[in-house]
Amino acid sequence: MDKRQAVKGVRQAIQAVREKNPLAPSLTNTVTVNFVANAQIAVGGSAAMFYYGDEALALAEIANAFYMNLGTFLPVYEETIPMFIKGLADRQCPWVLDPVSLEVGAIRKKMVSLIKEYPPKLIRGNPSEIISLAKTWELTEETSESSTRGVDSTDEVDAAKASALSLAKFIDGAVAVSGEVDLITDGQLVAYARGGSHFMEKITGAGCALGGVCAIYLCESSPFIAALTASMVFNQAGNMAQKIAKGPASYQMAFLDALYQLKPEDILEEDLILEE
Amino acid sequence: MDKRQAVKGVRQAIQAVREKNPLAPSLTNTVTVNFVANAQIAVGGSAAMFYYGDEALALAEIANAFYMNLGTFLPVYEETIPMFIKGLADRQCPWVLDPVSLEVGAIRKKMVSLIKEYPPKLIRGNPSEIISLAKTWELTEETSESSTRGVDSTDEVDAAKASALSLAKFIDGAVAVSGEVDLITDGQLVAYARGGSHFMEKITGAGCALGGVCAIYLCESSPFIAALTASMVFNQAGNMAQKIAKGPASYQMAFLDALYQLKPEDILEEDLILEE
Amino acid sequence: MDKRQAVKGVRQAIQAVREKNPLAPSLTNTVTVNFVANAQIAVGGSAAMFYYGDEALALAEIANAFYMNLGTFLPVYEETIPMFIKGLADRQCPWVLDPVSLEVGAIRKKMVSLIKEYPPKLIRGNPSEIISLAKTWELTEETSESSTRGVDSTDEVDAAKASALSLAKFIDGAVAVSGEVDLITDGQLVAYARGGSHFMEKITGAGCALGGVCAIYLCESSPFIAALTASMVFNQAGNMAQKIAKGPASYQMAFLDALYQLKPEDILEEDLILEE
Repeated sequence: MDKRQAVKGVRQAIQAVREKNPLAPSLTNTVTVNFVANAQIAVGGSAAMFYYGDEALALAEIANAFYMNLGTFLPVYEETIPMFIKGLADRQCPWVLDPVSLEVGAIRKKMVSLIKEYPPKLIRGNPSEIISLAKTWELTEETSESSTRGVDSTDEVDAAKASALSLAKFIDGAVAVSGEVDLITDGQLVAYARGGSHFMEKITGAGCALGGVCAIYLCESSPFIAALTASMVFNQAGNMAQKIAKGPASYQMAFLDALYQLKPEDILEEDLILEE
Repeated sequence: MDKRQAVKGVRQAIQAVREKNPLAPSLTNTVTVNFVANAQIAVGGSAAMFYYGDEALALAEIANAFYMNLGTFLPVYEETIPMFIKGLADRQCPWVLDPVSLEVGAIRKKMVSLIKEYPPKLIRGNPSEIISLAKTWELTEETSESSTRGVDSTDEVDAAKASALSLAKFIDGAVAVSGEVDLITDGQLVAYARGGSHFMEKITGAGCALGGVCAIYLCESSPFIAALTASMVFNQAGNMAQKIAKGPASYQMAFLDALYQLKPEDILEEDLILEE
Repeated sequence: MDKRQAVKGVRQAIQAVREKNPLAPSLTNTVTVNFVANAQIAVGGSAAMFYYGDEALALAEIANAFYMNLGTFLPVYEETIPMFIKGLADRQCPWVLDPVSLEVGAIRKKMVSLIKEYPPKLIRGNPSEIISLAKTWELTEETSESSTRGVDSTDEVDAAKASALSLAKFIDGAVAVSGEVDLITDGQLVAYARGGSHFMEKITGAGCALGGVCAIYLCESSPFIAALTASMVFNQAGNMAQKIAKGPASYQMAFLDALYQLKPEDILEEDLILEE
């Protein structure tokens, strides 16, 4: 795959979602659940949120991908998560994991081992989360100590590059590492996508919403193209929103409006670097 | 009741809520709970959200109506819902049901039978939800297969007309079916209310917020007038917001602002058709 | 402490939070949790929300203050709250209590007694909540019956002055009473802070967000200065937002933007009255 083919795949994914309105249900945190749903709808998808395992399996009848984010953990999840991820494995239904907070508390540590047995097809996180997950799953010995930020805009995500490659190979899918420049890999190809806004860090849930939108594109494309599409769409919508924002709340509004307005041709080759 | 009387009733309900600031507590989903509360406050009401049954009964001392939406179901509801709806029945306190997702998962199916025994006074849903609830409660044999959309703007809601009439008679209250044109019935009268915006479908929770606002008007008027008022108010605020929206998020902001700004005289007879 | 010293302390707290980006995790209600997090981030802090007690204690390793608001009560809290507040007491880690709804339902009544044993360092509430908490804890015999609103802008909060003083002494910390004018006391000093907007009452969660922001400032200052800073910051951001708001939703957006834009020098001595 070269750069032109990648951008073509991204544009097709954007278009396919606009036409088919795919549903990607979520088990996600209570803090940003509204933002996740509105971002999924803005790009042309449909949202549904569930707490029980049997709801997830009922939704699997009509959904092509799911999203899971354990940013807030509720007791019901102890039963839901095993039923959910085993059920999706049986159905070969792909899902997206946001590894936020997977280190916090005893119950999440149990879950992170189980997830290794029934893994997602796409992982979306920030550098320290990606490094930490690869280490917890014993895929690398890298630690986030190494992720000191350098002078290049890619230094931040490059600190997690080895972890991302290991994770992508292990899940036989794709990993997106979010930073000033984003790194997306399927274990072979490594893409860098630039753009976005400093306001992304000034609102809660930008990463959660990105994960939810990855799941929408995963309904209509491969894990690598889904991760790349979501990242490039967020970057471009971020560029658009930054121009009119006066602060984080007007940024968030303009960003959701831009997700809705964005067209396939707004995605540009010049915002992408592709390595093999 | 003729059209002029209906509009007069609507305007009085708007005014009464502005003056009395009634409280309508909700048991509602975690995705759109903030939007429900802000919409209730914007029209002049007060909001409170609860998870335990004894909270609901404590709130019933100071509230004239309630709202229930099981879009997300949490384990605590298994105890809360029976206590809540039996307690309201004892107190003859009316409540609004949004039948979203009532088909999904085993636990909701148990609840939907119980709700038939202790029914709401107002049901607000989209056509397929209304058709499905009437069928589950064995009030009609209609299925949502029949709800193919035709060429007239009322075709969508008319597909659920027989179900809405059956439900309204059964609960001895009112049913509001939301669509491009809304259908509101008390089992005899059938009103069609037009207006609103295509952006309503591009944000999560427009239906939830409408249900919550129905409960606010139900504090100060009959089920039919409450359902009609909420629908006409949402349509008119939607018209106002559509003019300045650039996308779904600026629409949602403008819509909430418009709910707040809207005056009784903004409700127009020309937006209403009344049949008996 | 005189007025000039107080304003100096407030300005330093604003600056310190901008520089150090402190984390103040929250156990808060599901209705306004997003607004709390975004307000905390807008002033320069970091947010995290938890449901389990062991998560709270893990977060206590990296956090200097916490926020608790039981506006919605979930069953998991029955185990979480004792572990949380005892754990913070062991670590001498201060926290902020919003006493909203503490009277509603049997389970909260149990918790309010336990909180008396392991008290917060800062309490932020409206007059009736402050009066009610002081009475429940048997610190005063005052009842909220006495809080009839008079003709001066301070009458509303002055009705809770004796309760606030008693509570502040009992917790050896500070109490902020929110009203048209806010009253902040450490049990000796009494400060009145003016400003803000009538729109504050037209959105859900203004009080919750204020409590969350108190916790952010509590990471970098004394309880009294933290409460005063949060109140003065909210008032000034409210003034700024009011000028451009067209309704409650555009107010909320402009308010969060203003929280982000606000500089230490925007805090003015003229908005403060200090009594000893």
